[in-house]
Amino acid sequence: MKAAVIGGGSTYAPELVSGFISRHKEVPIDELWMMDINPRRLEIVGGFCQRMTKLKGDLFPIHLTTDLTQALKDADFIITQIRVGGQEARHQDILLGLRHDLVGQETTGVGGFGKAMRTIPVILDICEKIKEYSSPDAWILNFTNPSGIITQAIKDHTDLNAIGLCNVPLSMMYQAARVLGTTLDHLSFDWVGLNHLGWMRHVYQDGQDRMLELVDAWMADPDIFKVANVPTAKVSLLESLNMIPCPYLQYFYFTKDVVATLKAKPKTRAQEVMEIDAELMEIYSRSHGDKLPELMQKRGGEHYSTAALNVMSAYLNNAAGVEIINLPNNGAIPGLLNSDIVEVPAVIDRTGARPITTGKAEAELIGLMQQVKAYERLTVKAALSKSKADALWALVANPLIGDVTVAKSCIDEMNEIFDLGLE
Amino acid sequence: MKAAVIGGGSTYAPELVSGFISRHKEVPIDELWMMDINPRRLEIVGGFCQRMTKLKGDLFPIHLTTDLTQALKDADFIITQIRVGGQEARHQDILLGLRHDLVGQETTGVGGFGKAMRTIPVILDICEKIKEYSSPDAWILNFTNPSGIITQAIKDHTDLNAIGLCNVPLSMMYQAARVLGTTLDHLSFDWVGLNHLGWMRHVYQDGQDRMLELVDAWMADPDIFKVANVPTAKVSLLESLNMIPCPYLQYFYFTKDVVATLKAKPKTRAQEVMEIDAELMEIYSRSHGDKLPELMQKRGGEHYSTAALNVMSAYLNNAAGVEIINLPNNGAIPGLLNSDIVEVPAVIDRTGARPITTGKAEAELIGLMQQVKAYERLTVKAALSKSKADALWALVANPLIGDVTVAKSCIDEMNEIFDLGLE
Amino acid sequence: MKAAVIGGGSTYAPELVSGFISRHKEVPIDELWMMDINPRRLEIVGGFCQRMTKLKGDLFPIHLTTDLTQALKDADFIITQIRVGGQEARHQDILLGLRHDLVGQETTGVGGFGKAMRTIPVILDICEKIKEYSSPDAWILNFTNPSGIITQAIKDHTDLNAIGLCNVPLSMMYQAARVLGTTLDHLSFDWVGLNHLGWMRHVYQDGQDRMLELVDAWMADPDIFKVANVPTAKVSLLESLNMIPCPYLQYFYFTKDVVATLKAKPKTRAQEVMEIDAELMEIYSRSHGDKLPELMQKRGGEHYSTAALNVMSAYLNNAAGVEIINLPNNGAIPGLLNSDIVEVPAVIDRTGARPITTGKAEAELIGLMQQVKAYERLTVKAALSKSKADALWALVANPLIGDVTVAKSCIDEMNEIFDLGLE
Amino acid sequence: MKAAVIGGGSTYAPELVSGFISRHKEVPIDELWMMDINPRRLEIVGGFCQRMTKLKGDLFPIHLTTDLTQALKDADFIITQIRVGGQEARHQDILLGLRHDLVGQETTGVGGFGKAMRTIPVILDICEKIKEYSSPDAWILNFTNPSGIITQAIKDHTDLNAIGLCNVPLSMMYQAARVLGTTLDHLSFDWVGLNHLGWMRHVYQDGQDRMLELVDAWMADPDIFKVANVPTAKVSLLESLNMIPCPYLQYFYFTKDVVATLKAKPKTRAQEVMEIDAELMEIYSRSHGDKLPELMQKRGGEHYSTAALNVMSAYLNNAAGVEIINLPNNGAIPGLLNSDIVEVPAVIDRTGARPITTGKAEAELIGLMQQVKAYERLTVKAALSKSKADALWALVANPLIGDVTVAKSCIDEMNEIFDLGLE
Repeated sequence: MKAAVIGGGSTYAPELVSGFISRHKEVPIDELWMMDINPRRLEIVGGFCQRMTKLKGDLFPIHLTTDLTQALKDADFIITQIRVGGQEARHQDILLGLRHDLVGQETTGVGGFGKAMRTIPVILDICEKIKEYSSPDAWILNFTNPSGIITQAIKDHTDLNAIGLCNVPLSMMYQAARVLGTTLDHLSFDWVGLNHLGWMRHVYQDGQDRMLELVDAWMADPDIFKVANVPTAKVSLLESLNMIPCPYLQYFYFTKDVVATLKAKPKTRAQEVMEIDAELMEIYSRSHGDKLPELMQKRGGEHYSTAALNVMSAYLNNAAGVEIINLPNNGAIPGLLNSDIVEVPAVIDRTGARPITTGKAEAELIGLMQQVKAYERLTVKAALSKSKADALWALVANPLIGDVTVAKSCIDEMNEIFDLGLE
Repeated sequence: MKAAVIGGGSTYAPELVSGFISRHKEVPIDELWMMDINPRRLEIVGGFCQRMTKLKGDLFPIHLTTDLTQALKDADFIITQIRVGGQEARHQDILLGLRHDLVGQETTGVGGFGKAMRTIPVILDICEKIKEYSSPDAWILNFTNPSGIITQAIKDHTDLNAIGLCNVPLSMMYQAARVLGTTLDHLSFDWVGLNHLGWMRHVYQDGQDRMLELVDAWMADPDIFKVANVPTAKVSLLESLNMIPCPYLQYFYFTKDVVATLKAKPKTRAQEVMEIDAELMEIYSRSHGDKLPELMQKRGGEHYSTAALNVMSAYLNNAAGVEIINLPNNGAIPGLLNSDIVEVPAVIDRTGARPITTGKAEAELIGLMQQVKAYERLTVKAALSKSKADALWALVANPLIGDVTVAKSCIDEMNEIFDLGLE
Repeated sequence: MKAAVIGGGSTYAPELVSGFISRHKEVPIDELWMMDINPRRLEIVGGFCQRMTKLKGDLFPIHLTTDLTQALKDADFIITQIRVGGQEARHQDILLGLRHDLVGQETTGVGGFGKAMRTIPVILDICEKIKEYSSPDAWILNFTNPSGIITQAIKDHTDLNAIGLCNVPLSMMYQAARVLGTTLDHLSFDWVGLNHLGWMRHVYQDGQDRMLELVDAWMADPDIFKVANVPTAKVSLLESLNMIPCPYLQYFYFTKDVVATLKAKPKTRAQEVMEIDAELMEIYSRSHGDKLPELMQKRGGEHYSTAALNVMSAYLNNAAGVEIINLPNNGAIPGLLNSDIVEVPAVIDRTGARPITTGKAEAELIGLMQQVKAYERLTVKAALSKSKADALWALVANPLIGDVTVAKSCIDEMNEIFDLGLE
Repeated sequence: MKAAVIGGGSTYAPELVSGFISRHKEVPIDELWMMDINPRRLEIVGGFCQRMTKLKGDLFPIHLTTDLTQALKDADFIITQIRVGGQEARHQDILLGLRHDLVGQETTGVGGFGKAMRTIPVILDICEKIKEYSSPDAWILNFTNPSGIITQAIKDHTDLNAIGLCNVPLSMMYQAARVLGTTLDHLSFDWVGLNHLGWMRHVYQDGQDRMLELVDAWMADPDIFKVANVPTAKVSLLESLNMIPCPYLQYFYFTKDVVATLKAKPKTRAQEVMEIDAELMEIYSRSHGDKLPELMQKRGGEHYSTAALNVMSAYLNNAAGVEIINLPNNGAIPGLLNSDIVEVPAVIDRTGARPITTGKAEAELIGLMQQVKAYERLTVKAALSKSKADALWALVANPLIGDVTVAKSCIDEMNEIFDLGLE
């Protein structure tokens, strides 16, 4: 069994490798291939990972390569975590957004749009190669952001086994367990949404819905459900929702405050990440590989290896595990199309992944999901058509932009900055 | 056959009466009852209308009353055109909106929301009386704004025959005919949307789609599809939509510009209307009733009587007439619920009104429709629950507001200004 | 404007031509092409039709041809009314059915299945030629039975403008008018179903639902809604349905009786038709063309030209006419797919034909419609795959067969008799 | 924790009690109440069960009662397994069916209809009492046949937690494991359908779909998937379906053969069961309770306690277990309503049970499911309306009857035999 990590030079990668190590019995891969287009990053990060496995008695070999085909050849699991244009492009996305008083974050708003426009053509090229070279049953586990849109593009334009993954639901679940003073095996969750647009609607501890207590705890301490890169606003105003929205919904619920906060920051998140990344690279280059650097937590992405390993384990061990992942709706959320990628609990066994139905969504949720899904569909279309008009209407459909004049300016600037070739 | 106008003191009413006069053969009402809670307005406007019919040889008697029950008793057609709180409330709505850089217009945005909150309880009371006193087959033709939301409230909470009417589709159709140098009988229209959120997608002249020419003409002269009370922004940016959006979509597409324009105006639209109304009252009080005052055009509402009379005529004469009206979706627009009130072409005969299917809507349109429909549903809920939380989430669902902090302030202010009794 | 009749040698054809003559002002065709693969039939029937137009001052020229391409070249309307294998094949279908105690009728049951299997490949070949040679906006008006299945095949496998037509709804409407002592312009109909599986649910005369009176009249005289080729059974048992089912529903509601009746008949319907056809050919060959032979009524198909001309007239004159036709559902009947061909009232203007929504169908109706539609889908699949297994499961899905053992025997016999080449 | 068995005098009951004993750690009930209206049966069967628990050290007390209220009081789990009219009524159902060449089996066809008509009013009365006396979170596990229809009635007319259970899916799963030489934990199943109308579409052993091998094995030995009370016909004809239909589908696929087989049998299944029951009662009355009688296997219902205990255990232990049960569709099978009770895999944890989506069903399956669901809906309606017309149209909608004349006779006879009071 071969696993491949595309974008293996990411400073996140060691966290993933640590997961492959600690759960090797459940997910007994025979070899791990780390691929990156940047040989220097690959060497440093990959070297660190190789030292990690060495300390564990060479549990499995780690191969480093800059050759995509070699990495994909006969692979059974392919983890995609690429960043087209790197942190520099992210920095530009954020600045572009802030110039227009918009959220330029890498998943929602105009930033996510820019990232999707750059990434979709690349990811579909990778998929072509997967089809040609990888195992016919290969699973793609996509972490590339905006994960929901990228997964939509893959599922709409290929027939590969692909799901979108995100550490957010899992992080919130662990957080809920901590707050409720219990462990995940005592809890079950009612979750519905799209990627980075999800809501924890109920949490049952041994059958009792403890959501209201969780909301109370959150009201008392807004940082409970905070994530590293998302500013938090007046959480108290969300009390009457009686749910825990995922942190990225702050961008929608508190657009004004969040944009003001971001504008006031001396550095963009991209710049922060670049600094953390530089430090991490320094650590990786000299570490023995005996433990993950603590600094990593500032990098975000907590539980990211857990998200990946849970899915692979449930699949390989035919475990009927329930994981919150991104996959085609197939009726799970009424009011969305069967082919719409949604983020819901799904049952995973050797059959694959099947979403669990969520029942009729609250009006507070469904309208926003539908509007954002329309934006996502239009974004996939624009990324492939390279049409300025398609790009314009995609941004207009995004509730964080909406305004045609603003959307037009963004498209024009973006086209020039990133040389997108829109016409 | 008895028709009743609830809100008969409106300065619009004479336009409606002129329709009843000119099309009396098609719609041979035996009596017209004009009801208003304001006896002075009723006397002046009603008196003018009575002089109008007198000049036509007393085609049908017009009765004036402040007694709702008397007006509704055995009525076959009931035209509802009320304005709870009058223009003063509208003025406050607009100011409230502009204080928060929001659209305070009486149908979309926070203004429409305020109007809906005040109106829904009143209109449902009227419906109770209709059920008790009017003909069991009575038709309600609702012009009360926001017409889509009010119709949603009526259809969700009663089983009366009710449709929502608006002069906008008809005005745009007449305008298209003018631009294309032809008449309506040569044209057929592809229209889809919600009230004040509709798009003319195609216009066929003798089978040829002439939409692109219409768009070209509009680009050359943005005022072609302007309505009196809606500011027009950079229409050229809409060219690539290849449709004519209804003027109220300017609020969505050009929110920033439109709000800036409204803020720069010395008077609110309510104040303008109050002035026009005062002038019109003056004219009505001294006119012989031989013609409608030209000033009326400034008041807006062009083709409003045509919209009403077309529907009544198609029904009474079993004419299978196709009219663009607001009624339950029943599958006409995929992606909306069967019970969602939509604005689409419908066939009207003695069976009633049945929507014509519109096919799958473009992603550019459907997301916005779904989001706005979620807002409308939540608004109906809030108006009846009197819950602050429901009101909050309704406004958050409105794409013209979205921000929770802003929504909270609006709800609080509105609750105080209008004494809504929200808790 | 050019119209073409494919299968012009049918003895029905003169009825159609008489329609083109009498409504030439509304549907001003410049030329009519009659095409048939049988030159003798074409000459006799076509010759008669030519004499008909001659007597009317050569309203429009009629061209006869055995060359499909020539007939289709630049045609604007193409009427398809072919019978692959002729009445002889129909005779075999009926006998095959009766051998298994099944309905072998040419539209429903095993007979309709056999006809569909033979016809679908041929009709799709014709469509290829239409795409290549006819006007790009050409309309196909399909009368070829089973009309619903054939239209399903055309719409699923081409993007041509095609609707399915049938004289049954119109015949029932005229009949209802006669019984109610009025004319069609006073009536409006609520009709829902698939082709030959439709129900008249309500009939409104000047707004009053008179269905119960119509049912009473039918109970008193079961022959009111009889058609020439369908036996009628104990109609009284249908009283509680409170609707008028189309005559072909007798095959479903009274399967046993109807099969017994058919078995007791000395001749099959095909044999009867062959005799009538021979007589008609004799009449056509010697008639001056001054009138249609009375014998034609025994041939069935009453109002068939009206069905065709109504559609063409509504289209050409942009009349928003409401006609009951077969076209994609698009939400008109909830519970069926958007692409399912259904038989419902549709609005026809120069835009094309758009179905009117019918609301939620009664459980008594929807289950049967869904089951039969599944059969129709499977039949289209089998006709193109030439797979015995597909054919088997199509017949099993047909509620008139159902039994796998019986279906298997039918498929085997049919494959041999008609040399279908199933494997 | 209290469990109650309504219909505890059934000779099946000891199997259930043995399950409560062997899995007491997982499902630690504090008391079991067995209720029956027949005191003699209750005493014998219940006495046997009490001796069973005594031998296990009085794991939990078993109380016997003929008082429904006492049994339901504060119950947490209520297992309903009643047979209104007993085996005598079943005998009459079968005879009635065979008189008309129909399937009179207790779940499908006219027999299931008769049983539903007698049972629905009774089960809804029990539900009233559950609402009044049982724990507010009580779960109803319904085994009463026809399980799908009874569950439909409960869910449509109450808001209780209720699911329908059946041993058939589980029996087939165990059988598949046996044939494939493995155990259930290595297998995952793709199952879709309604109760007694389900298909095992795929079976994955460690990720490989082994359905074709399973079909091959079935072709070689048709008895593999046989159940005690259902005759098996020419299974070889089902090969091309590439699935294993549940045994009850023999009634639909081989109606003719099965009816012939049943007519040829000297005794009805009811008579057989009465004999087995008498023997079992004899055994129970004298047994020490140390083991279940072998004769029980002839009684059918294998794995019935497993079905019940699996659900209770997954719920109590928050185990996210996947079980094939009957519950509201909620989008799991596209083409059925959200409120339609379907039989699909569902995830069960302390949240309750949520169906897993099954994707678009094959045309071979969906039409039959839709038609049978329409029948089920109409049956629930008829059982409550007591209307002869409703009953007629329910039977007509059943694909095993269809014919109106036959349906009419059945309704009339049934009304008299069982004194149903239909009018």
